[in-house]
Amino acid sequence: MSISYVNGRYVPHHEASVHIEDRGFQFADAVYEVFAVQGAHLIDENGHLERLERSLGELNIPMPMIHAALKLVMRQLLRANRLRYGSLYLQVSRGVAPRDFPAPHGLTPTLVMTVMRQKPFDPVSALKGTKVITTPDIRWKRCDIKTVQLLAGVMSKTAAYAQGAAEAWLLDDQDNITEGSSSNAWIVTADDELVTRHTDHAILGGITRKTVMKLAEQNGLMYIERTFSLGEAKAAREAFTTSSTVMVRPVTYIDDSPIGDGVCGPFCQKLIELYGAYMKQGPSA
Amino acid sequence: MSISYVNGRYVPHHEASVHIEDRGFQFADAVYEVFAVQGAHLIDENGHLERLERSLGELNIPMPMIHAALKLVMRQLLRANRLRYGSLYLQVSRGVAPRDFPAPHGLTPTLVMTVMRQKPFDPVSALKGTKVITTPDIRWKRCDIKTVQLLAGVMSKTAAYAQGAAEAWLLDDQDNITEGSSSNAWIVTADDELVTRHTDHAILGGITRKTVMKLAEQNGLMYIERTFSLGEAKAAREAFTTSSTVMVRPVTYIDDSPIGDGVCGPFCQKLIELYGAYMKQGPSA
Repeated sequence: MSISYVNGRYVPHHEASVHIEDRGFQFADAVYEVFAVQGAHLIDENGHLERLERSLGELNIPMPMIHAALKLVMRQLLRANRLRYGSLYLQVSRGVAPRDFPAPHGLTPTLVMTVMRQKPFDPVSALKGTKVITTPDIRWKRCDIKTVQLLAGVMSKTAAYAQGAAEAWLLDDQDNITEGSSSNAWIVTADDELVTRHTDHAILGGITRKTVMKLAEQNGLMYIERTFSLGEAKAAREAFTTSSTVMVRPVTYIDDSPIGDGVCGPFCQKLIELYGAYMKQGPSA
Repeated sequence: MSISYVNGRYVPHHEASVHIEDRGFQFADAVYEVFAVQGAHLIDENGHLERLERSLGELNIPMPMIHAALKLVMRQLLRANRLRYGSLYLQVSRGVAPRDFPAPHGLTPTLVMTVMRQKPFDPVSALKGTKVITTPDIRWKRCDIKTVQLLAGVMSKTAAYAQGAAEAWLLDDQDNITEGSSSNAWIVTADDELVTRHTDHAILGGITRKTVMKLAEQNGLMYIERTFSLGEAKAAREAFTTSSTVMVRPVTYIDDSPIGDGVCGPFCQKLIELYGAYMKQGPSA
């Protein structure tokens, strides 16, 4: 049985609940972060907490506690669950109030955390190619805020799984790829250009995306942040996705088009290696 | 103390809760309806239940129970609260499951209901003019489904209240008005044309909107469903909003432009009268 955290209490997971008038439940008035846990360390802990604070700030929701206190609670939850490999999910909502659209002032935010046990990151099985489908990006215009308004992602990911794909890449009105349902999208063009879409209100600034950029830079792999089209992606030498959950995952099919040789290419292979090593390094990150 | 309903149980409101892994809380994977209650009758009960079923259908969530059973629960909840005037809020989510984007099959939907006490509809105070502001429509592209993805509405309504307005009207990329944050938008043009936007994926097909159309038709007021621009709205003779919560509400300012004479015009006045009479009529609707 796992232990979850709800508003100051560590409780058996099945008893963990929030009020039905929590604004997270009635208005999706809530944001979240998912932390990868490797060797009992929270990967990119500071990056996730900074993004959490930014998301809350955009919605005028106060941080439920300072970073140091959040870190203590997260460590306590990992210990209570004896969790060494997996993930920690953290959600903050504006709080509980009688249902009304305008955001009330002075609510106490709701803070919830759960953990999930998973296998350790395995750089060999990580090389396995995956398929993505493409589908119109029907999300709202503030995807830079990591809110729980995830229904479009639910729909596109459900469609992907139904078609034997691991992810759906989303297409804007000009048939450019914005990002995946729950990951950032990358390609290596025919000219060996490593590309991922620039950040703005249309996509989430991924923490793993940022770390992969840093690792690429440190290792002499140049990347460029710009718009890229579905056509360009299908003609790419390599493609992959990044997220805290999948880390770095090769994409070897986009819709029915094989990418490159249909196996994980050298750029992606190198980044998986680097990312694996980065995670092993531990909490200095 | 009010009584709420959660998954088969009538519970004191403050004890009413859902699991933290309810998909309504983590993915906004939920839909809702608000029923006006007048004289202990649920206004447009069938219309709301039909729309609920449609919203759930679009997301492949099963109805939690058949219409007749839902009606029994709603009546029971009104009785338990001795509620004669106010509203009943009903929310259905896909259910509880370990967090993962793809929609799992076979979950038991979560069904939640709350009530809110309000004053009876007063056709005289209903004539009071209100102000709306306008703001870009940043919502997703399936606003025809009545989901709890309401953050854009929270933001626009919060901005409206901060500016002393009662509602925000939303503008598409061509500066046409789609609808309000939580209501449909109507105008009466300089040519005495009664206009509200046609329904498609960009707006919610309002139940009160539909009833007002029926009442207009029955009383010789012609209406047309079409796109209308902000410019047209500002130059209109009359403007008003409709929703289950505000019923029919005159709009006498759009941003800083007074509409018509700055008071409730004759079309709107007539529709308030008709709608008031319609609600008095009771459950035959």
